[in-house]
Amino acid sequence: MREQFTEWIHDLQNRICTSIEELDGVARFREDRWERPGGGGGLTRVIANGGVFEKGGVNTSVVHGELPELIRSRFKVEGGYFYAAGISLVLHPENPYVPTVHANFRYFEISDTEGGPVSDFWFGGGADLTPYILFDDDARHFHTVLKKACDRHHRGFYPEFKKECDAYFYNTHRRESRGIGGLFFDYLRAGESFTKEERFAFVRDAGEAFLPSYLPVAECRMHHTWTDKERYWQEIRRGRYVEFNLIHDRGTLFGLKTDGRVESILMSLPPRVRWDYDFRPEPGSREEKLINILQQPRDWVLEE
Amino acid sequence: MREQFTEWIHDLQNRICTSIEELDGVARFREDRWERPGGGGGLTRVIANGGVFEKGGVNTSVVHGELPELIRSRFKVEGGYFYAAGISLVLHPENPYVPTVHANFRYFEISDTEGGPVSDFWFGGGADLTPYILFDDDARHFHTVLKKACDRHHRGFYPEFKKECDAYFYNTHRRESRGIGGLFFDYLRAGESFTKEERFAFVRDAGEAFLPSYLPVAECRMHHTWTDKERYWQEIRRGRYVEFNLIHDRGTLFGLKTDGRVESILMSLPPRVRWDYDFRPEPGSREEKLINILQQPRDWVLEE
Repeated sequence: MREQFTEWIHDLQNRICTSIEELDGVARFREDRWERPGGGGGLTRVIANGGVFEKGGVNTSVVHGELPELIRSRFKVEGGYFYAAGISLVLHPENPYVPTVHANFRYFEISDTEGGPVSDFWFGGGADLTPYILFDDDARHFHTVLKKACDRHHRGFYPEFKKECDAYFYNTHRRESRGIGGLFFDYLRAGESFTKEERFAFVRDAGEAFLPSYLPVAECRMHHTWTDKERYWQEIRRGRYVEFNLIHDRGTLFGLKTDGRVESILMSLPPRVRWDYDFRPEPGSREEKLINILQQPRDWVLEE
Repeated sequence: MREQFTEWIHDLQNRICTSIEELDGVARFREDRWERPGGGGGLTRVIANGGVFEKGGVNTSVVHGELPELIRSRFKVEGGYFYAAGISLVLHPENPYVPTVHANFRYFEISDTEGGPVSDFWFGGGADLTPYILFDDDARHFHTVLKKACDRHHRGFYPEFKKECDAYFYNTHRRESRGIGGLFFDYLRAGESFTKEERFAFVRDAGEAFLPSYLPVAECRMHHTWTDKERYWQEIRRGRYVEFNLIHDRGTLFGLKTDGRVESILMSLPPRVRWDYDFRPEPGSREEKLINILQQPRDWVLEE
């Protein structure tokens, strides 16, 4: 599984970067290879100041070593080793009509001895969309593509992981979601219902759904012209994105606390951001409607 | 003490706002009074888009009620009531030559019954400076004024609270300080060495030192003209300020977790911020020298 998963994320990283560069038309990804002192390393690919993407990263990492204290205390084990492979991406378009997107797919193993038999393993991941100017069609498209990927494996997956996504990407202090959701799943183990191969097949399909879920939305909205006011609103909303990632996101905080590579972790932060005191959109405006939707997550896929 | 402290912070708030408006010359503070559902409230005063200050807040709050769960678990008490009064300010100048400044002075009481005898109390607070373009003279002036305020009460205060400030305002994940420090003190109780009145006298002097510690620095540097490159650097560094406040600052996280007034708490965030992937100042530049200093806190007051 280690090899299969690692091969898949590197291949997916290549294909996503190629597609994003094609869409962008101007900027190319810059690549940084890094090594983790405790074992393993990563391949960080970032794009900046493009025709479409103001900033983005499509990163993979394959790390292993002694279990960090944070995981040991969480799982109540005294020692042990881990192996983790994952792909993580965030794209921040310049145009406020094009939504920000995030996706992440990972495989985690624990063993009692380094390189010894695996005592526990799971898959995790998801994808979610953060629009600044919301088009219902975009939200429906994004969710529908993800739902189809889920449905191929189990009809219960989409409703469950959609709900978990709404619960996870929630700025409790603002009482609003970061965006309009998508999928979020974690601790997908093998058991009576699913084999390890079936779990991987699902995660792979979810990952493969990223490009078809996002690219058509970006392609469509990138042609909108925007005003300074719309850009201002985008920068204010990007502040909420930062707040979520730095205050609430378990992945970000875990990475920073376990001495992860800071620049690869914080590549998720938007390039230009604003915080105004008590900024409020005009009553009845499109911006206010977006906030109302973020305060009350909705179903985006119409029942067949 | 409640009345004395509350009267002092409101008076200091007025005087600071008046001085800041005079220096700014363009913008005026806007005032929001708010009430806390559990008891008490606050007076938030914010300034924006001024001649000197791009964004700033000088807030007071006087709140009371049942002890929040977070404090109960920290102090291992099952119930009880609190009374807290404080002044908190952050000023973000537009000009990258003028440093950002933060200060906070507070009084906290705990009692077993609402309005009953005080079972525990303490003072806390401090002030610290965050330059983007560092002038040693500014750092020395700021620290010297604070040291003089400390020395009037105890020769050990300045060294102790300066050290605590360096330890507290530290972005562990970046391995650098937020700024060039100042004072930080907490849990100043009465005991054999100091009476409650002596504690208050010290905190008051520290608070009164804010204007003379900061205003001359701002007055001097506000006349510098700046380049786009210097402004860019300031916005990058403001990102580190956001990282500290949202990831590490106990006051911010405590406020957000105990359902404090979000806009008053997050007024501390800078108005415009940038995150570039792996931004590095040029070798040998003034910017690189600043980072070196932030990685290794220094003594700013020359021994007499």
